[in-house]
Amino acid sequence: MPEKIRIALDCMGGDFGAPVALAGAELSLKRLSNVEFLAFGDLATVEPLITTRPQLHRLTRIVHSEVVIRMDQKPAEALRHGRSKSSMALAIDAIKRKEADFAISAGNTGALMALAKIKLRTTDGIARPALAALWPSLKGETVVLDLGASIGADAEHLFNLAVMGGAMARTALKIDRPTVGMLGSYFSQFDRQHHAYAADQLLRDTQLPGLNYIGFVEGCDIGSGRVDVVVTEAFAGNVALKSAEGTARLIQKSLQGAMRSSWSSRVGYLLARGSFSMLRTKLRPPNGAMFLGLNGTVIKSHGSADAASFADAIAFGCKMVRAGVHSSIQQLIQPVPV
Amino acid sequence: MPEKIRIALDCMGGDFGAPVALAGAELSLKRLSNVEFLAFGDLATVEPLITTRPQLHRLTRIVHSEVVIRMDQKPAEALRHGRSKSSMALAIDAIKRKEADFAISAGNTGALMALAKIKLRTTDGIARPALAALWPSLKGETVVLDLGASIGADAEHLFNLAVMGGAMARTALKIDRPTVGMLGSYFSQFDRQHHAYAADQLLRDTQLPGLNYIGFVEGCDIGSGRVDVVVTEAFAGNVALKSAEGTARLIQKSLQGAMRSSWSSRVGYLLARGSFSMLRTKLRPPNGAMFLGLNGTVIKSHGSADAASFADAIAFGCKMVRAGVHSSIQQLIQPVPV
Repeated sequence: MPEKIRIALDCMGGDFGAPVALAGAELSLKRLSNVEFLAFGDLATVEPLITTRPQLHRLTRIVHSEVVIRMDQKPAEALRHGRSKSSMALAIDAIKRKEADFAISAGNTGALMALAKIKLRTTDGIARPALAALWPSLKGETVVLDLGASIGADAEHLFNLAVMGGAMARTALKIDRPTVGMLGSYFSQFDRQHHAYAADQLLRDTQLPGLNYIGFVEGCDIGSGRVDVVVTEAFAGNVALKSAEGTARLIQKSLQGAMRSSWSSRVGYLLARGSFSMLRTKLRPPNGAMFLGLNGTVIKSHGSADAASFADAIAFGCKMVRAGVHSSIQQLIQPVPV
Repeated sequence: MPEKIRIALDCMGGDFGAPVALAGAELSLKRLSNVEFLAFGDLATVEPLITTRPQLHRLTRIVHSEVVIRMDQKPAEALRHGRSKSSMALAIDAIKRKEADFAISAGNTGALMALAKIKLRTTDGIARPALAALWPSLKGETVVLDLGASIGADAEHLFNLAVMGGAMARTALKIDRPTVGMLGSYFSQFDRQHHAYAADQLLRDTQLPGLNYIGFVEGCDIGSGRVDVVVTEAFAGNVALKSAEGTARLIQKSLQGAMRSSWSSRVGYLLARGSFSMLRTKLRPPNGAMFLGLNGTVIKSHGSADAASFADAIAFGCKMVRAGVHSSIQQLIQPVPV
């Protein structure tokens, strides 16, 4: 049996709040063994949703919080109003006090990032945290970061992203010497003023052991699996993530329309529905991103996640904790003196 | 019959050079009427490819050029070596001398941009050109810019992108008062230092007539068709474009695999193949992007385009010229004094 994982669950985040968070937690129990939950949220809302789920009920302790950080609050506003008593803040406090192994929230990303950074602080040697996810590719999975934690970048920050992303690929994807690429475009490769250019030079010059830095890659290489780790500044990373999601949705809807467009295609769809269902599962947009570079593991779920997708994010968090992603980064950034 | 369009064709660009450019030109004749070509390239290569295509032959005049700009040359290098005599440079010269209505190349984007800017110059009032394309969406098509012409942006540049993108939507998509969104992420919306934040304020304050600026949108809104025009800085735009392409390729390959995974799905595929073929046509990655803000129309085809895709780019160029995209931008930026 794998070691027990204690999950601090912000029940009040996301577009749908507690019903999805708790239905997702229950669903996750079908896939995960030896986990337990600390559920942070409004008792009157959360308790009935848990008592009707006996398996979840047995594994969950509720911690009441009546303050909710809204999805549309600016990070500064969220900090003022929710820093000490919100369900999101209390879930992060549980990590700080070592009462949980990771915290998860589908809430306001900016607020989650701000609270996590203030409460957990960054690992020594890391100035700014990053948000990283595993992206499906033709060859398996690719670590992509930063997906939206620290907008704006200089060469040193991108260098740290490569180190942290490499550690994530080694531990979570079990790749000994992961290949790393810098997201670029034909111009940034020649533009000495561009942050990606300077970072590329720095990574080439340094030749980090344990990393195989291959230079610039493009947005299409995320899906192709050309490298194990794709490094980019957070604004571009967030744009890449969202535009890939938009494209996937566009294709899915067009496919649905096409399969309904004639009788023969309807019959064809019925015959192939097993394959379509496998495809849907395989291509379901991955959910769950991890903040790297903090003293603790905080997982962000998509705000619009449904229960199945929230369960994916919980499973992702467990995978990151069991793989030891967080501690491998701490070791890398702070080498133990011999 | 529509007015005649004269096309300056750089035959030597792209990953495949003249065979694809000329096969693409021939294919385009099935869809376009009243066009003729000026074909720039090495006579020994180009002539046999044209004489074997009688319809194309009748409509094409070859202009010999033995200098080719390579795909891997840096823009500065390409300028030094190909500024006066390369097939790409001569195609642009034809625009300048009004011997052609648009130039098209599948060659090195950086070099094409640098040559076009030096030879044609930017429209008065526009400091830096942009690369714009029509992106398929759930509702039709979306103008997206800048896809990679001018890396780095300030508020004024993004403001001009909104004006030029709006003009393209009005003329090419025939939308009277197009909606415009600024590509952002949850952070850039609150970050006063971010160029997108300042541009958003500027567009809100200005309330341009003929444009309905709605504020920030995200990468997923490109595919959803939430707005008619998506404005972004070129690095992020290029990343969005390429990551959408990578996602489309990933899904297409996974779909092919799924349809071959069992006998019933193979039969299902055969029954639905009409719909699959329609879907493929509909979702074929669009090819053809237009440089906006230059004194002339220059069209960039994907370097990896095959003949069908290169024909798409030629058709795109004709559509832009017939819609009057270029002149509508010039009028907007330089209002005629009353």
